[in-house]
Amino acid sequence: MASQPFTPRWGIMATGGIAQTFVKDLLTNPASRDVHDIAHKLVAVASSSSKASADAFLDKVKAPEGVKTYGSYHELVNDPDVDIVYVATPHSHHFQNTMLALEAGKHVLCEKAFTVTGSQARKLVETAKAKNLFLMEAVWTRYFPLSIKVRELVQSGVIGPVYRVIADNSLGNDGPNGSVTFPDENRMVNPDLAGEAEKEAPKVAAAINKYSTGADETTTVILQFPKHKSQGVAMTSLRIATDVDGHNTSGPAIKIQGPLGEIQVDGPAYRPLQYKVIKKDGGGKVEVVDCPIPVDEARDVGHGMFWEADECARCLRDGKKESATLPLSESIVIMEVMEEALKQGDVHYPDVITTDVYDPKSPLNTGGR
Amino acid sequence: MASQPFTPRWGIMATGGIAQTFVKDLLTNPASRDVHDIAHKLVAVASSSSKASADAFLDKVKAPEGVKTYGSYHELVNDPDVDIVYVATPHSHHFQNTMLALEAGKHVLCEKAFTVTGSQARKLVETAKAKNLFLMEAVWTRYFPLSIKVRELVQSGVIGPVYRVIADNSLGNDGPNGSVTFPDENRMVNPDLAGEAEKEAPKVAAAINKYSTGADETTTVILQFPKHKSQGVAMTSLRIATDVDGHNTSGPAIKIQGPLGEIQVDGPAYRPLQYKVIKKDGGGKVEVVDCPIPVDEARDVGHGMFWEADECARCLRDGKKESATLPLSESIVIMEVMEEALKQGDVHYPDVITTDVYDPKSPLNTGGR
Repeated sequence: MASQPFTPRWGIMATGGIAQTFVKDLLTNPASRDVHDIAHKLVAVASSSSKASADAFLDKVKAPEGVKTYGSYHELVNDPDVDIVYVATPHSHHFQNTMLALEAGKHVLCEKAFTVTGSQARKLVETAKAKNLFLMEAVWTRYFPLSIKVRELVQSGVIGPVYRVIADNSLGNDGPNGSVTFPDENRMVNPDLAGEAEKEAPKVAAAINKYSTGADETTTVILQFPKHKSQGVAMTSLRIATDVDGHNTSGPAIKIQGPLGEIQVDGPAYRPLQYKVIKKDGGGKVEVVDCPIPVDEARDVGHGMFWEADECARCLRDGKKESATLPLSESIVIMEVMEEALKQGDVHYPDVITTDVYDPKSPLNTGGR
Repeated sequence: MASQPFTPRWGIMATGGIAQTFVKDLLTNPASRDVHDIAHKLVAVASSSSKASADAFLDKVKAPEGVKTYGSYHELVNDPDVDIVYVATPHSHHFQNTMLALEAGKHVLCEKAFTVTGSQARKLVETAKAKNLFLMEAVWTRYFPLSIKVRELVQSGVIGPVYRVIADNSLGNDGPNGSVTFPDENRMVNPDLAGEAEKEAPKVAAAINKYSTGADETTTVILQFPKHKSQGVAMTSLRIATDVDGHNTSGPAIKIQGPLGEIQVDGPAYRPLQYKVIKKDGGGKVEVVDCPIPVDEARDVGHGMFWEADECARCLRDGKKESATLPLSESIVIMEVMEEALKQGDVHYPDVITTDVYDPKSPLNTGGR
């Protein structure tokens, strides 16, 4: 008889779109993605504004009976039945919200972007280490089987050393009269710089065209790794799309380039489903590999966020405090890069979201903002 | 009876690969590219080192009888039979060599890069204007029928306003033991930023990985035009190639992106032969347009440099002192951008090539260097 799967008990902080998608995936049967060693249990959901919002959330995700609902984040993090908190608030809130959970002794999976500043990221990591708690940034695509295969390919040397990565995560939609229709999913690209490049902190050169609100509209960031002879080019835009016509006609969203060839990942970069390998000596031949995201037929759900949840479960089971696939040191570097890019682009945020002083009564923790 | 075609008399300064290609094209029959209003006459060629080199050059290009040869640039620019000098020296020499020709009262077509610094470019333009002489930077691809069609398409609004141009002119070849095999053709990309964007001087953000010699190895430059909501991303590398396998398998070299669609130019970016139009509402359909370069069957030659020569001839015929397709103000901006990129990349050149003080006895003019 097989042993029982290890099953962490999840508490969900916030009830927006990303939380709904995550929890729908969390409630799928792991067997539908051929996972049998771990499982997931949803025990509580909190809205910052009202218990009613949390109740409505449970309806939306078709949650089973017995899940607790709260109208405050403080109640959620103090629920003794919660092992790990998924922080699904806007990234402006991540530092305060994750600190709230860590201070209450909870493990945390925190949505990307991890924080707003490098200093906030360093403080989160210090706090998790001091309290011996698991902490991970929810860069979900890093746990896709596609991403694992691409990293294995890069490490196998099929394209030689990685000299350049070009990642385009432009999702935008040009609007009337100079405006844009701002999709919720739009974020700064986190380029997966595979292999050795990770060991060298990059130099950053960034250009940000600002929107009328002061937020970034079209951003290009160059990450430079002179020691490794490589560069990363990350692009995002609200005005144009990587995938012009919605049929991936215009080409790949990501290109990983080495002297022996190139690995291309088709878009959208935030949820890739196919990669291609083009070898220098391939004579025009392309290896195309489809990596569909499995669906739990019983729930008709499968978005791909379950894989990062599985990683959290396995780390908790094995007593690991961070994921080897996305070490906390790398989340810190990513935030330092983003902070530098925003600085070079002259983008400013209010003090309440940039402070690295934890305040349990911050409006970001109490729902006042 | 048709009137005689206007026929400028060309003097060629330098005898290297680019000069050979240009002169072979210059010697083709304009009718082979359906041009009948102008023609070209080769009257003299100069090597900086010896008359013998210039004689050998004439053999290589299969020149007709009667072309004069010189062992110095000074003799060439003082030949009264020469109307226009084609400066085909390394770009380190362009400022001194072009000044030499202008001071001698000759019109000039100067190879790209125009100069080494913005100040040198400004001084060349001032001198040409003061002397009422024609001056043009030899950005040959700008005069390709393909480029004309792409500019017309952009201006017709088929992709809406240009929000981003991504140009990859990576030609490189990774060599053994960390070296690269340096192709002569490798230069900084001159991105064709079509339409309105040209009217706004760009902000520049650049990253340059340097080669062991101190020259640039992998360079990425972001040009930012906030007023036009657009950005240009120019990439070049000695280590990796835009065209991985030599079959254009890995996608376009240039993408011109607007909210309504995208125009893609297949590589190599330095000699494009095909473009594609992908419309947002095209439902996955791609318009592919081939633009072959016509060959003069009698000489078996056709590289595409004749079109820029034709432009020079028409400007001279019409009394124009600059080309409307590449105004001198734009050549100045291009050089200012390159200078800023090199500065940000901490790339330095010797004083003898960066000075903006004209010296007819500079070793760059006398063949001493």
